[in-house]
Formats: sequence, C-alpha cells, structure tokens
Amino acid sequence: MSFAEGMINSNPVAVSEPKKSELVSAINACIDCGQACTSCSDACLAEENVLTLRGVIRTTADSADMCTATAKILSRLNHPKWNVLRAVVDACITQVRVCGAECNEHSRMHEHCAVCAQSCRSAEKALQSYRTLIEER
Amino acid sequence: MSFAEGMINSNPVAVSEPKKSELVSAINACIDCGQACTSCSDACLAEENVLTLRGVIRTTADSADMCTATAKILSRLNHPKWNVLRAVVDACITQVRVCGAECNEHSRMHEHCAVCAQSCRSAEKALQSYRTLIEER
Amino acid sequence: MSFAEGMINSNPVAVSEPKKSELVSAINACIDCGQACTSCSDACLAEENVLTLRGVIRTTADSADMCTATAKILSRLNHPKWNVLRAVVDACITQVRVCGAECNEHSRMHEHCAVCAQSCRSAEKALQSYRTLIEER
Amino acid sequence: MSFAEGMINSNPVAVSEPKKSELVSAINACIDCGQACTSCSDACLAEENVLTLRGVIRTTADSADMCTATAKILSRLNHPKWNVLRAVVDACITQVRVCGAECNEHSRMHEHCAVCAQSCRSAEKALQSYRTLIEER
Repeated sequence: MSFAEGMINSNPVAVSEPKKSELVSAINACIDCGQACTSCSDACLAEENVLTLRGVIRTTADSADMCTATAKILSRLNHPKWNVLRAVVDACITQVRVCGAECNEHSRMHEHCAVCAQSCRSAEKALQSYRTLIEER
Repeated sequence: MSFAEGMINSNPVAVSEPKKSELVSAINACIDCGQACTSCSDACLAEENVLTLRGVIRTTADSADMCTATAKILSRLNHPKWNVLRAVVDACITQVRVCGAECNEHSRMHEHCAVCAQSCRSAEKALQSYRTLIEER
Repeated sequence: MSFAEGMINSNPVAVSEPKKSELVSAINACIDCGQACTSCSDACLAEENVLTLRGVIRTTADSADMCTATAKILSRLNHPKWNVLRAVVDACITQVRVCGAECNEHSRMHEHCAVCAQSCRSAEKALQSYRTLIEER
Repeated sequence: MSFAEGMINSNPVAVSEPKKSELVSAINACIDCGQACTSCSDACLAEENVLTLRGVIRTTADSADMCTATAKILSRLNHPKWNVLRAVVDACITQVRVCGAECNEHSRMHEHCAVCAQSCRSAEKALQSYRTLIEER
C-alpha cells in the first residue's frame, strides 16, 4: 500500500469506491510526474543540444509546479469546492498533455524525455479517470 | 520598481505594453495572494471558532498552492504554450474567486479574513486583466 | 523501476553508486512524505479534537513544503553547490524528525498520524543515508 | 501596508516588536526573491550564452523553491518549533547567499542577474535580521 493510499484511507472524511482508488492513483501520478518533470528540465539543461531544448525545459518546469500544486490540492478532503477542483484538475490535464507531447518529440534522442513523457501520460490518464468522477451534475 | 518588474523588463524575451504591465501586476498579485492565503489558513487555525473555519482553512491552503504555482508559471517567458497558460490562469481565477468569497463571509469577525479576501480580489482582477490579453484568437 | 530512478539514470550528469541509489531513495521518500504530510494536516483538521491538533496541523504543513522543495532540489544534478545541498538536506532532516515525533504522539488515536510518522521516519532515514555521502571533506 | 504586514498584524498569535517588523520583512523578501529567481532562471535560459549559464539556471531554480517554502513556513505562527525554524532559515540564508554571489558574477553582462543578485542580498539580509531574533537560548 502506498503512503497516499494509507493517508486517504485514514482521513476522517470518507471517500467511497471507485472514487477513492482513482483519487489515490491521481495523487501518486501527480507527485511522480512532478518529480519526473523537474528531473527532465534539469537533464535537458545538461544536454549538448540545450539550445533546441529550451521549449521542453520551460514546459517541464511548469508541469512540475502544476503537478505539485494539484497533488497537494487533491490530497485535501475537507470541505471540497468541486467547481474549483474541476478547474484545477482540467488545467493540470492540459499541462501534462502538452508537456507529454513535447517530451515525446525528443524521446528518441533523450531517454529522460521518453521517461518523462511516459510519466506525463500516466498523470494525464489518472487525472482524466478521477475527473469523470467529479463531473458537474 | 518591483523586483518582478525589473526581472520582466530585463528578460531577453521581450513583452510589449500593455501586456507587460498586466503581466507584472498579475505576478505580484499572485505572490502576495499566495502569502496572504497561507497566513489566513494559519490565522484561522489559531481562532477559537476553528470548527466553523475548516472550509476557509482548506480553501486558503489550496489558493496558496495555486497562486504560488501560477506566479512561477507566469514568470517564465521562454516558448509559451498559450493554451496551457490560459487553462492555468483560468483555474487560478476560479480558485481565488471562490476563496475570496469564502473569506469575505468571515471578514466582519476576523480581520485576517478581510485582508485575505482583499488580496484574493486583487489577484482575481489582475489575472482577469492579463487573461483578456492572451485570449484565444 | 520508479520514475525517479529512470530519470536519474538517464540524466547526462552521471551519479555513481552507491550515491545514485541513495539519491533516488531520498527523492522518492521526500515526495511521499510531502504528500503524507499535506494529507495528515488535512485529516487532523477534520478530527473532532482539532483544538489539540493545531501543533500537528502546522508542523505537517511545514514538512510538506520543506519535503517538496528538497525533492525538487535533489532532483537537479547540474552544477551542484554542495554546501547549499548539505544545508537544505540538514534542514529537511530536522523538519521531518520533529514532525515524525509529533505525529507519533497522536498515532494511537489517529491512524493518519501513524502513517505520516512512518513516512517522516522513512524520509529522515533516506535523507540521512544520502547526507553521509555528501559529507564535507 | 503590505498584505503580509496586514496578515501578521491580524493573526491571533501575537508577535511583538521588533520581531514582527523583521518577520514581515523576511516574508516579503522571500516571496520577492522566489519570484526573481524563477524569472532569472528563465531569462538565463533565453540568453545566447546559455551554455555558460547552466550553473546559474540551476541555482536560481533551487533558490526559488527554497525561498517559496521558507516564506510559507515563516507565515505560519501556530505552535512554532524554533529549532526547525532556525534550520530552515539557515538553509535559506545559505541558498540565497550562494545564489546572489553566482548571479553577481554575471551582473555586468545580464541585467536580470544584477536584479536577481540584489533580490538575493535583500532576502539574505532580511533573513539574517530575523534569524538573530530567534537565536537559541
């Protein structure tokens, strides 16, 4: 069991299945993607062809900030404001989709871009799954 | 001149007026609002009626995370992805609008909620002004 | 293989063993602990005895911020300034040691405090192991 | 009056002078320095001589993370753990001192490095002043 799962399970604010599993997956995918993006931004900066990687370095830095903020916001269960949560999750989905596509373009040349793209897709998928469960009624 | 203004002025990626002034205002409003929201979350926690302030404590914590991330993302000028920036700015606007309204409800009882609500409105307004300048064409 | 391991492995700045394994463990422990602490702060806020948990709510919020920052800083491998890294890692060790002890005091009453304390100890241990490898010479 | 000053003034946890003024200055200097460092990291990345600026790009990114975390931690007044606060403030002082010195080396060539160095010195000075007031007894 991941720490995130243990934490969500023991929060006095109960979350029922399948929402709980999707929430835990989304949180874990966001913290992993935030790390991968910070790491990819740094790895690209260390490459010889850094001049052609400026776009990726910037986009991954943004994704790191957005994924980290989203993971924190999703980890809170008290008094949710669903319209805010939807807007934040949607923005994070857009962020990692664009970032994943940009990293993917460099994935043949740079293994770190391939791993980061995979992490972005994983975050996008997990956020999308959770997003459908907090749909506006 | 604020540090943010000095930094945006000297970035090799030029931003022309009126976008530059609105960008600097949005960045400064976001960092101030991020601080005010962290502070309000802590101040509410110290109040005797903390039980009735749980909603505010959570929303201000979220706003702090979202404003901090948005300020960092707006501060970067390399290779902007405008659709991502619009989504992030929109999410932050939603976040501070809801947070400002919630703080406002407690503003007569708690001065820190009044100051925080003012900071949220200031961030909302500054972000809205910048947002109109990065409209989808 | 974790995303963090894949990212550190593919960074052009090579890190040799055993430093690499310890670095990956420290990064992963920090992102997990950052999440657990945000979650614990929120779970404590939802408890009926919130008045007696103010200390934990504050300390876990601090730990979340410090672990998140440390994970990002450790993820960067370009041009390290070792004296800065030592100071940051030391501060994070102090933060999670104190936080883990405080959560541990409430662990019998609150499962989330028990899980969070375990996460803090895990981060403290991983950071300590990495710290000995970047010792001042 | 800055938002930070208004927030600290209205927190139920009272801070007496001269500690209050120094705390507000330290918080404001940290949020400004965090912004300036994110901005400088991005501006350096946009420069033609980016290859010689890799060290600054990394150090400013670290400083941004550390200043942001420190500003949040200093903004909380509930149940302070002074040994943790001293460790965090000390780490941030080390971070901005080293960052300010590195930016200063590039200040003749790049105006953004000059502004960022000034912001780092301002944060270092404000943190030092507050640090002397939370000295171990």
